[in-house]
Amino acid sequence: MATNNAKATIRFTGEDLFVGLTPSGHVLPIETDSTRNRAASPAELLLLAVGGCTGVDVISILQKKRQHVTDYRIEVSGERREDHPRAYTRLFVKHIVRGRGVSEKAVADAIELSDTKYCSVAATLRGTAEIITSYDIIEDDASQ
Amino acid sequence: MATNNAKATIRFTGEDLFVGLTPSGHVLPIETDSTRNRAASPAELLLLAVGGCTGVDVISILQKKRQHVTDYRIEVSGERREDHPRAYTRLFVKHIVRGRGVSEKAVADAIELSDTKYCSVAATLRGTAEIITSYDIIEDDASQ
Repeated sequence: MATNNAKATIRFTGEDLFVGLTPSGHVLPIETDSTRNRAASPAELLLLAVGGCTGVDVISILQKKRQHVTDYRIEVSGERREDHPRAYTRLFVKHIVRGRGVSEKAVADAIELSDTKYCSVAATLRGTAEIITSYDIIEDDASQ
Repeated sequence: MATNNAKATIRFTGEDLFVGLTPSGHVLPIETDSTRNRAASPAELLLLAVGGCTGVDVISILQKKRQHVTDYRIEVSGERREDHPRAYTRLFVKHIVRGRGVSEKAVADAIELSDTKYCSVAATLRGTAEIITSYDIIEDDASQ
């Protein structure tokens, strides 16, 4: 196992707000008052972590396969337990690929590789949450 | 189970960068080129999610118990598998509470409650990653 000595520091600033300092030196506010809602919440950061992690795998693989992708986004939503602790039990990760003549097999294979091999965040969550992937491929009509 | 229809969207912007839009409407850049390192990475967001999630539980409980906390931060680090997928196998969550006459039992109980009952992020990760909590209590000398 690799030990990562780099640590994140999350500091309470009062008024239900935290400031996170990442191991590589970036600062983010973290909101814990959902009514005020001035910054992303911890659970929201988790959703972004999943999307960014699988997203970079998928787009890298599609680029290596010389697929002509003109737009790419990932939508992530989840179901949580109703009782405490309200862990995610299912995460829905939908890949939306727009491009010209993009191969469905290339997209399906890229998602499969990310899901089973590369994405460290998904692999960490999978012990508790089922991760359900899907994709849409939209032909980008160059004439429009 | 509660379905949360709110979704996060993570959009590829080119050049190994993503922009995340959280369900509640906040925008965050997500960096996937660790050499360039201009924003938090997906794995870093995961660490902040854990810290913010347990942090709000612990500080809320300490405040309800009328503990005199003058500063509070959480340090989160992890160990990951060396092989792909590089899931976190252990997460170290250290609570550092500064205050005046803060009860050790109150801190230990607050952490225990967050860990076992309230923190949804930790509960989601625990299927794969062992979460190892610790704490330091520092007496805040008012004369300094």
